Amino acid sequence: MGVVEMPMADSGEEFWASDTAARELGLKLVSVAPGTAHLTMTVTDLMINSHGICHGGMIFMLADSAFAIACNTQSNRFVGQQCTIVYLKAAKRGETLIAVAKERSQSGRSGVYDVTVKLEDGTVIAEFMGTSRLIAKKAN
Amino acid sequence: MGVVEMPMADSGEEFWASDTAARELGLKLVSVAPGTAHLTMTVTDLMINSHGICHGGMIFMLADSAFAIACNTQSNRFVGQQCTIVYLKAAKRGETLIAVAKERSQSGRSGVYDVTVKLEDGTVIAEFMGTSRLIAKKAN
Amino acid sequence: MGVVEMPMADSGEEFWASDTAARELGLKLVSVAPGTAHLTMTVTDLMINSHGICHGGMIFMLADSAFAIACNTQSNRFVGQQCTIVYLKAAKRGETLIAVAKERSQSGRSGVYDVTVKLEDGTVIAEFMGTSRLIAKKAN
Amino acid sequence: MGVVEMPMADSGEEFWASDTAARELGLKLVSVAPGTAHLTMTVTDLMINSHGICHGGMIFMLADSAFAIACNTQSNRFVGQQCTIVYLKAAKRGETLIAVAKERSQSGRSGVYDVTVKLEDGTVIAEFMGTSRLIAKKAN
Repeated sequence: MGVVEMPMADSGEEFWASDTAARELGLKLVSVAPGTAHLTMTVTDLMINSHGICHGGMIFMLADSAFAIACNTQSNRFVGQQCTIVYLKAAKRGETLIAVAKERSQSGRSGVYDVTVKLEDGTVIAEFMGTSRLIAKKAN
Repeated sequence: MGVVEMPMADSGEEFWASDTAARELGLKLVSVAPGTAHLTMTVTDLMINSHGICHGGMIFMLADSAFAIACNTQSNRFVGQQCTIVYLKAAKRGETLIAVAKERSQSGRSGVYDVTVKLEDGTVIAEFMGTSRLIAKKAN
Repeated sequence: MGVVEMPMADSGEEFWASDTAARELGLKLVSVAPGTAHLTMTVTDLMINSHGICHGGMIFMLADSAFAIACNTQSNRFVGQQCTIVYLKAAKRGETLIAVAKERSQSGRSGVYDVTVKLEDGTVIAEFMGTSRLIAKKAN
Repeated sequence: MGVVEMPMADSGEEFWASDTAARELGLKLVSVAPGTAHLTMTVTDLMINSHGICHGGMIFMLADSAFAIACNTQSNRFVGQQCTIVYLKAAKRGETLIAVAKERSQSGRSGVYDVTVKLEDGTVIAEFMGTSRLIAKKAN
């Protein structure tokens, strides 16, 4: 994919506001700043898998959404290109998960971001690393 | 986590039947056999992200669900431990995504699975590799 | 990085012949064909880590070299962009490791390859997935 | 693999001293402290691949060695279980690469570590995330 110039959201908040999938699943934006985003998600009955715990795909969804916002907080538009998630603890029904995404590196058209997913008591549920790729530059 | 003995689903179909999150999001089981599973998901309006395409977390959810079923088709119970996804093409509203998961290796308490996510015309949307870990052996 | 046109090796064999690092470490090319490569490496005293087993970095080196050849067997030139390795068994001094790399997907400027590292008896030592990126097209 | 009790190196320095593979390839230990390690490697003629740049496997070897030391700086012994590397820039002959590994999370028998590989001027060459697994507890 080449890089095009297009009008786009001016901020992480605007970017978040148009993320239908993340908001539909009940994710909440706590804060956003250049290169970082902080989301939460409470594990509902509908997020449970066959082991009776939160579906790993839902934990990824939370981490990936924080990553997507963090890499679109500044000018230009990025998509996720590759992500790795490590699950450290099961998340249970009713627990609130907190995802904090932070930029780790930027180089050319690529960026690398870390996301940590924790419980409110600090217990780490999952660690995530995502690579973004520039798809559009902001038109003036 | 240690390995416990417990009663559990006799088959991939039973395992799937209790995956609330995957079914809630509209994923469909096409087929399942030892070490493999085949699911589909049609991209709805509710799965769209801020770029106007299918949220990467939803594509992961599909791949991860296929992986989870594939690694629980036989006796014993496994959870995902680590997953990597590579996005190759955007998926659009209304498209049906097909995920096929296959066992690649088993060794001790770990297994490695590949999942390919394609469109109906064979276009690859994403490639996924997941590592599973044994958490429970089937009680007789 | 953009894509340039340049003269380049006509085949995987020529590509391999100029891989100083891989040959210096004692890797051997068994066979190469479009989209695939087969290498071996015998674990020497110099490849041992602090646990007394083969250094994970050496196992990666073998897998990565097979990946690099497999993605340069055809026209155009690719570099590795992102790789994930899962270690399943320790490799010991004197053992011969066999790496077989195979193309899994090609899409635009990216490719995804799988590499399995085994012992001669078929025991899997590691599984690897690599993403390549086009950097040069072959000049006519 | 189970967890055994055994005598072992008292420190990251001792652990490093017995890493034949890393030292054989010319890696140098700059510093080590609980949960972190700092190594360097100068790209020699013998580390060059078929593209005329530093072999990705050698960059991984550096990152992986820093990770291995960082996760063995304290009591108990860990092996790498899974690693992901993202390459951001090519490293050239004669350049000195600096790898800094830091613990990101510990949970049960697993740990997650980040490693950044940079040039001396701060240019990031690669980002790495590794998961470790406990294999031995220190005998008293």
